[in-house]
Amino acid sequence: MEAIIATQPFQLAEGQKFEKVSRELPTPEAHDILIKVYATGINPVDTKMRQAPLNAEARVLGFDAAGVVEAVGDAVTDFKPGDRVYYSGSNQRDGSNQTYQLVNENYLAHMPKTLSFAEAAALPLTAITAYETLFDVFNISPNPQQNQGKTLFIINGAGGVGSIATQIAKTYGLTVVTTASRPETNAWSKKMGADVVLNHKEDLAKQFDDQNLSRPNYIFCTYDTDHYYDVMIDLVQPRGHIATIVAFNKNQDLNALKQKSITFTHEFMFARAIHGVDEGMYRKYLEDVTAKVDAGQYQTTLNSVLTGLTPENVLKAHEMMEAQSHIGKLVIEIVE
Amino acid sequence: MEAIIATQPFQLAEGQKFEKVSRELPTPEAHDILIKVYATGINPVDTKMRQAPLNAEARVLGFDAAGVVEAVGDAVTDFKPGDRVYYSGSNQRDGSNQTYQLVNENYLAHMPKTLSFAEAAALPLTAITAYETLFDVFNISPNPQQNQGKTLFIINGAGGVGSIATQIAKTYGLTVVTTASRPETNAWSKKMGADVVLNHKEDLAKQFDDQNLSRPNYIFCTYDTDHYYDVMIDLVQPRGHIATIVAFNKNQDLNALKQKSITFTHEFMFARAIHGVDEGMYRKYLEDVTAKVDAGQYQTTLNSVLTGLTPENVLKAHEMMEAQSHIGKLVIEIVE
Repeated sequence: MEAIIATQPFQLAEGQKFEKVSRELPTPEAHDILIKVYATGINPVDTKMRQAPLNAEARVLGFDAAGVVEAVGDAVTDFKPGDRVYYSGSNQRDGSNQTYQLVNENYLAHMPKTLSFAEAAALPLTAITAYETLFDVFNISPNPQQNQGKTLFIINGAGGVGSIATQIAKTYGLTVVTTASRPETNAWSKKMGADVVLNHKEDLAKQFDDQNLSRPNYIFCTYDTDHYYDVMIDLVQPRGHIATIVAFNKNQDLNALKQKSITFTHEFMFARAIHGVDEGMYRKYLEDVTAKVDAGQYQTTLNSVLTGLTPENVLKAHEMMEAQSHIGKLVIEIVE
Repeated sequence: MEAIIATQPFQLAEGQKFEKVSRELPTPEAHDILIKVYATGINPVDTKMRQAPLNAEARVLGFDAAGVVEAVGDAVTDFKPGDRVYYSGSNQRDGSNQTYQLVNENYLAHMPKTLSFAEAAALPLTAITAYETLFDVFNISPNPQQNQGKTLFIINGAGGVGSIATQIAKTYGLTVVTTASRPETNAWSKKMGADVVLNHKEDLAKQFDDQNLSRPNYIFCTYDTDHYYDVMIDLVQPRGHIATIVAFNKNQDLNALKQKSITFTHEFMFARAIHGVDEGMYRKYLEDVTAKVDAGQYQTTLNSVLTGLTPENVLKAHEMMEAQSHIGKLVIEIVE
């Protein structure tokens, strides 16, 4: 088997530090499953991890994948060789930028029958992030009727997370308002199901008022939290809830949350993996994605494909992520 | 009727600026109710408002009261003259440091039959704060069975809010761990129902571990949030929830919430009053307090009584609040 590794943290300006190596095929133990990877997605978290200190001799990035079960550990009962699966995996283990990968069964689900491997690999990390934000953080109801009349505002509707969060929120009954500024991002966000797309280069509060939109109960920030912190506090309804997945660059005034009694969450989908808590939720959420995709309620968010698991393609994928203008999701197809 | 007013913001070091004035008895309109006030509670928010800029010629503080309905507006159907009621009221109107007060019907509930006016006046503001934190913020279940095994950690268990929050959380099935350091605060917090009282002058994480306590799902900070910010982030379970009612003195690093995907709320019970949103929740929560008190499940948190609505007693009450060491609640009884 082959893996794309890096043996040191690096910036893109330093040039290519990814390399391809051959490794021995591992044997799954107990609750592990060995997967032959057919497609691996790229996310902003890959670019952050690439630059972070390294605790091992080498690391394998890639935290989105679809593939086929090759072998299962003794304790595995829900998967068998030949099953088509998808998963985000754990940031505590090697990722999916390799041709075979070990993944704990809690992290896996059977992939949608109606999607290709590349289309499936586009979904797990962003979908889990969106499910956690909607259900664990915002506590929306699993019954769409109960969410009627509630508004979710997504900053950066055309990004990877925004694209799937829009679809999930719509399916579960929320009204979804997003932001975009380019004609192509505006069109993409509408294609994902946004009820209204606002222009983030103009005054957002004025656009809410001019279009007679209810102020949001929930705001999900997927871009430049420092810039939007005060804006979100101004926009959200009293006793509303703001979540971000983008780290801050500076400290913030938490007293600004007081007048409206606002709740703020720093959503991080690897928290369960890092702390070993309730990892079965990863599977549960992916199973719902599979059901909704196969029922025609969600579509893939795949928008770009690179072909071939090479150091060049992994580096190119990182460059595309760091440009912060990618629409939907980017996936590398693994061909033999 | 008489009112204790202040015509300027002031610090305690400036001496007495409260004065007693006579006013004309107002007539309730539509949804208002005129109440003859028999007892008025004091809370830390009174001391903060006393020091804040004044938007009117004079203000009347006091946001906890129990009394008797004197007259009702035309649109009021659930209350009639002679009813014994209690309430926190709105910080957008004159408070309860007066012998008669107008209050919107949404803010009122019938007071517990088993309590005196002073005992009842001790409860509304702190109970509403605790209900909002438990049900609106932490989203605990109204079914105690579903909260079994979940732990709430309250910083400053013997304070006004901590005292009633402990009782509510216990009644709704949570395990409650609190902090106290003096023998008398420790004993009081246990009397309020705390399962375990930790000493906040010693290492809290070590005490959780030494006593084999589950790390808290929820942390409610009612004292010195700046000091406890990092401590709470360390203590709380992954994907846990922290709420505070105490403003920060400095900006904070919100990225510290990321690794555990923590949720943070600045609870403020006047948010509904300020923004005119869902004020009926105030009554709903107080009705539950009444039911639980009369069923013997909650006890009053009253611990000190000053007799007579005088400028001297109001000032003394403010001094006692600012000392930040008061146990339970302080109420001024109004005698004629």
